[in-house]
Amino acid sequence: MKIARYEAHGTVHFGVVDGGNVAAIDGSPFGDFTVTDHVHKLSDVKLLAPVVPGKILAMGLNYTSHIGDRPGPEYPMVFHKTPTSVIGPEDSIIRPKEVQRFDAEGEMVVVIKDDCRYVSKEDALNHVLGYTCGNDVSARDWQRKDRNENNSDWWRAKSADTFSPMGPWIDTDANPADQWLQTRVNGNVEQDQSTSDLIFDVPTMIEFITKYVTLNAGD
Amino acid sequence: MKIARYEAHGTVHFGVVDGGNVAAIDGSPFGDFTVTDHVHKLSDVKLLAPVVPGKILAMGLNYTSHIGDRPGPEYPMVFHKTPTSVIGPEDSIIRPKEVQRFDAEGEMVVVIKDDCRYVSKEDALNHVLGYTCGNDVSARDWQRKDRNENNSDWWRAKSADTFSPMGPWIDTDANPADQWLQTRVNGNVEQDQSTSDLIFDVPTMIEFITKYVTLNAGD
Repeated sequence: MKIARYEAHGTVHFGVVDGGNVAAIDGSPFGDFTVTDHVHKLSDVKLLAPVVPGKILAMGLNYTSHIGDRPGPEYPMVFHKTPTSVIGPEDSIIRPKEVQRFDAEGEMVVVIKDDCRYVSKEDALNHVLGYTCGNDVSARDWQRKDRNENNSDWWRAKSADTFSPMGPWIDTDANPADQWLQTRVNGNVEQDQSTSDLIFDVPTMIEFITKYVTLNAGD
Repeated sequence: MKIARYEAHGTVHFGVVDGGNVAAIDGSPFGDFTVTDHVHKLSDVKLLAPVVPGKILAMGLNYTSHIGDRPGPEYPMVFHKTPTSVIGPEDSIIRPKEVQRFDAEGEMVVVIKDDCRYVSKEDALNHVLGYTCGNDVSARDWQRKDRNENNSDWWRAKSADTFSPMGPWIDTDANPADQWLQTRVNGNVEQDQSTSDLIFDVPTMIEFITKYVTLNAGD
């Protein structure tokens, strides 16, 4: 099932995508819902980020192909992206004037289904609603300077406004261990890999994070 | 005015504290409200964290007295604390078993009044609802290891569940440049300073952050 969040005639709905259409749901995608006969063409609505997260925990250096010759992390390398950086798939990313090196990083985004803590690897995928695409927009100038010279988080390097585009919808049936991930910038392929190449897979990440931090529906 | 958030008879209210009583408000502390005659004794309610923030941006090494002989930061050193780490003033902080060095850091917490970006120093305090007390609970083992060996954020060092106690209420009349801040652990004074000792004052921090990131009501 593909779950989208969209604006039609000024109001925001969750809906189920089927071909070129989206049918509004009655209820919450995180709980019980029914699909209504309130249907729009996808081309007639504005797709929004498919979820409004309470928090975003991202994984760094988690692809064998991304780390190159660097040593991989011993345990998952976690960083925050703030919810205010989220935009929808049709919105524009804004490069701040003072940033010169501005990169796209294509990511598989895991959407959590319910509030959970102390989740085991074996049980982890039961707490996942589905998967969407994300761009971990990175201002490299700040990323280096803020961490190395200022001991800051990447609070502006990866979380300035518009730095977390997501969408177009949540796929509830995807296999997180076997997704093809390609990033194109102005048509040029800049990233082309598989999530089978993840150093720490999704169940391992969920187990690790929930040992310390509660994950909520929508995170 | 002192604005509290509390639970009474199973429901959550915002209210105005007056002496030993709290009067529920009708409306939102971030918008228009009226004070009702629905009054409880403070001793009869459970005080909650006075705000449910969408995000928390904290400042590191921002007191002359805290940095000691270390060089101060050139510009505000910002890090995230996650909303799920917030607890109320009557809740218990839980030390994870694997953490040995576990510290309290008393902080003045600034509560933002409305959604804002590109705020000038001169205008900054107009976007502040008020101030409360916070404890930036810090697991030093993780703080050092995660940053230095793993390049992570302090996502568990400062944001594990229960690591952000706040309260007891928001004081809307406090002067952020002249607050006495004392932290006691089991009665022992561990921190005793004034916010006049801040390296970057509140208006400077708000101007700096909102150059890059939108602050929302409650942040």
